[in-house]
Amino acid sequence: MPEKPKRIKPRLLKGFSDFLPERMLARRNLIEIVRTVYERYGFMPLDTPALEYLETLTGEYGANSAKEIYAFEDRAGDHVALRYDLTVPLARIIAQYPDLPKPFRRYQFSPVWRFDKPGPGRFREIWQFDVDTVGCAKMIADAEIIGAIVDCLKALGVERFHVRYSNRKLLNALIGYAGIESGRAHDVFRVLDKLDKAGLENVKLELGPGRVDKSGDPIKGLGLDGGPIGKIDEFLSITGKTRTEIVTNLRALFGDAKEANEAIDELAEIDELLTAAGIDDTHVKIDVSVARGLDYYTGPIFEAILDDLPKFGSVFGGGRYDGLVQRFMGQAIPAVGTSVGIDRLLAALVELGSVHAPRTTVQVLVTTMDKKRMADYQILTRELRDAGINTELYFGKAGQIGKQLQYADRVGIPLAVIAGSDEFDKGEVSVKNLHEGREMSEQAEDRQSWLQARFGQETVPREKLTKFIREAFAAR
Amino acid sequence: MPEKPKRIKPRLLKGFSDFLPERMLARRNLIEIVRTVYERYGFMPLDTPALEYLETLTGEYGANSAKEIYAFEDRAGDHVALRYDLTVPLARIIAQYPDLPKPFRRYQFSPVWRFDKPGPGRFREIWQFDVDTVGCAKMIADAEIIGAIVDCLKALGVERFHVRYSNRKLLNALIGYAGIESGRAHDVFRVLDKLDKAGLENVKLELGPGRVDKSGDPIKGLGLDGGPIGKIDEFLSITGKTRTEIVTNLRALFGDAKEANEAIDELAEIDELLTAAGIDDTHVKIDVSVARGLDYYTGPIFEAILDDLPKFGSVFGGGRYDGLVQRFMGQAIPAVGTSVGIDRLLAALVELGSVHAPRTTVQVLVTTMDKKRMADYQILTRELRDAGINTELYFGKAGQIGKQLQYADRVGIPLAVIAGSDEFDKGEVSVKNLHEGREMSEQAEDRQSWLQARFGQETVPREKLTKFIREAFAAR
Repeated sequence: MPEKPKRIKPRLLKGFSDFLPERMLARRNLIEIVRTVYERYGFMPLDTPALEYLETLTGEYGANSAKEIYAFEDRAGDHVALRYDLTVPLARIIAQYPDLPKPFRRYQFSPVWRFDKPGPGRFREIWQFDVDTVGCAKMIADAEIIGAIVDCLKALGVERFHVRYSNRKLLNALIGYAGIESGRAHDVFRVLDKLDKAGLENVKLELGPGRVDKSGDPIKGLGLDGGPIGKIDEFLSITGKTRTEIVTNLRALFGDAKEANEAIDELAEIDELLTAAGIDDTHVKIDVSVARGLDYYTGPIFEAILDDLPKFGSVFGGGRYDGLVQRFMGQAIPAVGTSVGIDRLLAALVELGSVHAPRTTVQVLVTTMDKKRMADYQILTRELRDAGINTELYFGKAGQIGKQLQYADRVGIPLAVIAGSDEFDKGEVSVKNLHEGREMSEQAEDRQSWLQARFGQETVPREKLTKFIREAFAAR
Repeated sequence: MPEKPKRIKPRLLKGFSDFLPERMLARRNLIEIVRTVYERYGFMPLDTPALEYLETLTGEYGANSAKEIYAFEDRAGDHVALRYDLTVPLARIIAQYPDLPKPFRRYQFSPVWRFDKPGPGRFREIWQFDVDTVGCAKMIADAEIIGAIVDCLKALGVERFHVRYSNRKLLNALIGYAGIESGRAHDVFRVLDKLDKAGLENVKLELGPGRVDKSGDPIKGLGLDGGPIGKIDEFLSITGKTRTEIVTNLRALFGDAKEANEAIDELAEIDELLTAAGIDDTHVKIDVSVARGLDYYTGPIFEAILDDLPKFGSVFGGGRYDGLVQRFMGQAIPAVGTSVGIDRLLAALVELGSVHAPRTTVQVLVTTMDKKRMADYQILTRELRDAGINTELYFGKAGQIGKQLQYADRVGIPLAVIAGSDEFDKGEVSVKNLHEGREMSEQAEDRQSWLQARFGQETVPREKLTKFIREAFAAR
């Protein structure tokens, strides 16, 4: 016999989450909606391993984030790491399978791991849903990614949102325009990316002398002086009522600067493509303050904002990164995509009250009144399952029917089948609607949406049970 | 500007796999079928983190497999590990959330990681689909898990298979019956578990003096002598035409030995429960040679075998493990479940020819003949997508229609929409059926199953396009 094991405290790793059934059902709902939209656009599923060679994941982009990577030496002595995002593995895929048809449109729903400082809403295991088009340099690819974001948010029942976009080349042009040396560009972008959270004044302080944050910690400034900061301020104040108006205002500011005009042309082209696809200024705006922190962006950049949760930050973020695949190949391959953290998005939808998932997928509980009739309960259960009805057979002690109904109610099962020996002998069973007569709680409302039963308890002939229950769920 | 990055060879870690779109679609098909069956039985989804404290994963059971665990120290100095299975995390969940309703029936589809010797069909990242019932000591829980396995395999289109079951307590009784000291029980079970792959004679050698395997490596024997081995042989030769007959034969062999009778009663009870649920001897048999390698089983054990792929070994495997949760709690909580490696199962289904997944989920390619009409192509694309049709807009160079159709054909898109300026002006578009007139390849057959179009190429009024295409896919 094995020795008595010591008792281990059951606990989660810090920064990690369990997904219990109710949360899983809400998540699945969301994932299915996003997946359906992505497939409408012609994207196909892909999956890659959680572990990669460390070398695969690090490099130009990884260098900035290396300290957040879960890296270790495996038992064979290989330096490996948990993937940090889904973009670098995609770049590897493109290089490793040159025969993949291009453009390659794929989505991937997978966790990534980052050794971030954990906090409210900040986790170390993040389920991302990415969508990317690789091998197309045209702005139509960018416009379709933006269109897919718009469609996702609409399909999720969010009405008040907007996608805002800009262009990394415009920011590069700004660096020149403001007279900042190009080597400092990415530092400037990372400060600009804080605009939403920190506000303009704080951003200006971080570009300049630095500041002290809320908790009293000093934030080192970039040390720019008034001239460049004034130019940046001037740039950030460019707005307009429509995308077209902003394009006009940008042209006025930058004159004939080459890189700026390339960027502005791209902004204008995306505007036209979106307009052709029926996506107007309500849901997609040009916003020159969009910066996106990542180094690898080379063209359009964009992010989605929930208008009623501005503090939440962006829910989708992405852009064009034409250089990333080059790390693995001799040649550059154009690519554009977006990423969304599914659990952050779910948290936002919960806050907006637009999550309507059932608490359980079980539709019927077959209660057990008489333990001598277990075979009958089983036959009944099998019949319902064979008819496609999700059915749980009560496993607890037979008899105490009140306790069984309480259990069904607690876990959210809408219907219970009840039959004792008398009923079986008479060829009858009862069906109890556990929703009927209850307060319309949020959950009950969700159940109501697919349970059409309009009765409290009803006795039905045994042979008509399946038909009766099927009809009670007819709306499904 | 960042320095030019060095070129990195794109490669997978040894023992890991990429899942390109075609494979993902086949997998998803399979996963959806399994999930639907599990939900019919009332199981609910659960997910847990990939990383856990090493201490959580190791212990009585982990001790045997510790060398296969991906363990490391994280940046905070915590000893962590990638989960090795989904059973230990479930045990943690049960202990950590005592308010979860019992019995707790959950399924989980997640990868696990094992530093195994990689080889054909052996991977280090394994996607498992587990289903377990925790908190029910009755045999009905075991019978339902077996029933779910049967339903899964039937739903997957496998006809020739069987689930065979036995009981760990029967094996414990065998140890006593054969006069082997109880401390050697698990060693004996691990040898018996090889019966299928190694055959009876080799198993007898491994129980006794040892043997040399095919590659010439010596396998150390347990050193049992003729007496115990003879008893084991006698036990293994117990068969019967029906489950009931085997129960009778077992009772005859063991007489009134207590543990044996407990086990035989359980075998008999599962037999009765399965019979009541309409599952006869065809698909579920009692087989006393079933051993299952894992130490933690305490009662019924079972596995599913594909009759046409006997060499493949078991596809589902599981059993009752009433002691595992105890590691985290003062008290034992009964539990029973099964696990299936989804990619091994998929490989088996491919070999059996019972995988019918489409190569792509894209239904329509909107080709682009005239680049001045891009807005029209976009409007057309949006219209189809809004109607729920998965539509790809061709992103390559406009004009060369042959190349575009070739692309659609290559990736498996069944319909192409074709329109040039003339057609647009006349208010017409053409729809080409890329399936029509081709050889019925395996893929084409799959496409045929949901594409009902009976035409080669047809010109339709522009405003009727969506309706026309919807009808072409009417069977979906």
